[in-house]
Amino acid sequence: MAYDLWYWPTIPGRGEFVRLALEAGGIAYRDLARGEGGMQALSDDLQVPREEPPFAPPYLIADGMTIAQVATILLFLGDAHGLAPADAKGRLWVNQLQLTIADAVAEAHDVHHPVGIMLYYEDQKAEALRRATEFREERIPKYLRYFERALLHHGPWLAGDRWSYADLSLFQLVEGLNFAFPQRMERCLRDCPKLIDLHAAVRDLPELAGYLASDRRLPFGDGIFRHYPELDEA
Amino acid sequence: MAYDLWYWPTIPGRGEFVRLALEAGGIAYRDLARGEGGMQALSDDLQVPREEPPFAPPYLIADGMTIAQVATILLFLGDAHGLAPADAKGRLWVNQLQLTIADAVAEAHDVHHPVGIMLYYEDQKAEALRRATEFREERIPKYLRYFERALLHHGPWLAGDRWSYADLSLFQLVEGLNFAFPQRMERCLRDCPKLIDLHAAVRDLPELAGYLASDRRLPFGDGIFRHYPELDEA
Repeated sequence: MAYDLWYWPTIPGRGEFVRLALEAGGIAYRDLARGEGGMQALSDDLQVPREEPPFAPPYLIADGMTIAQVATILLFLGDAHGLAPADAKGRLWVNQLQLTIADAVAEAHDVHHPVGIMLYYEDQKAEALRRATEFREERIPKYLRYFERALLHHGPWLAGDRWSYADLSLFQLVEGLNFAFPQRMERCLRDCPKLIDLHAAVRDLPELAGYLASDRRLPFGDGIFRHYPELDEA
Repeated sequence: MAYDLWYWPTIPGRGEFVRLALEAGGIAYRDLARGEGGMQALSDDLQVPREEPPFAPPYLIADGMTIAQVATILLFLGDAHGLAPADAKGRLWVNQLQLTIADAVAEAHDVHHPVGIMLYYEDQKAEALRRATEFREERIPKYLRYFERALLHHGPWLAGDRWSYADLSLFQLVEGLNFAFPQRMERCLRDCPKLIDLHAAVRDLPELAGYLASDRRLPFGDGIFRHYPELDEA
């Protein structure tokens, strides 16, 4: 039986980390809010009383469970569908990497929303300009160097001899940062040849070819990763 | 053999979520940066080349693995020491809750550091005042209502018929928010009787009595949860 995925229908956002794993794993799923009901269907579903309520989308309904939080969903998919190493050390390493990717994603979001999730960017632009400086100059290099170092030990994949869900997520993080901070990323990636190779290897996975070329793959825009030219520089 | 925990020695911070699980689980560990070497020993250890390098403390050295990220460490401890339900549904639910707690912790930190992790609070006070408003008025109630709802389904514990690591972490989140935003929390907790009960139940666990009364239990101060009176109001 196909799994049901619930996520905001108009942005790649955090849902995309789950979609990439489902697609690359060849796992049947329905992306419910992208169907007829759209956003309203998702809002309605969030009101359904559940034993294990999600705090926020994305969440996956699978095997009688409602599983929220990207890293938890991927932990489940990794175990159930072989998208992560089977041994304890490898499983935990991939989970740890996923959480570090999640931290980077949260910081990338907060660059354009430093003082209020519910405010518009335009209402916190001055604060965003301040936050962007540190993110560009300190945080992006720190995260990229970290993943490069992990790949130096483990490459070409983050764990084991085939891709795991963390490789897919790291690809998506690089995609998002390339979109949001193209000048800075162009410069920072010069020091990260392994990461460039990983990004290309995921992009070229035969398992993802159909998905990445389809209209199921949503473009970046107004979600977590946003391109405001004033926040980027080399 | 005792596990080795590495974390900044002077603040409870994220390390405390791990310490609580180790202590309540009766698991032998050495808190290495709180020994003779202190901060320098931690800085040195972070430079050690490792197959699975941590991005940041806390990290636990256990069974030949280096495990970083609080939720990953707790996933390991939960499985290895029975600090979480044994069935898939319960394990994933507890992991999901832990990640939602982690999100709340990160937001609580960013209230006093909205534009720069590496800047002083005093250099981003104006921005902090803006961010605190939304955190107090929207985010604290949203998180507390969520956990209250989870406890209504599951109580008195978040999962199963005994405490799990997520209960310990939720206790610590409430402790931290009570410290940082005492006026706001006093008001918000009026609507959360189950959460008040859970907080008291963890505080009174016989397994934690020795630890909570010891000087191993660090007070809040200059870490993630900070009390700046100007950021709090009812």
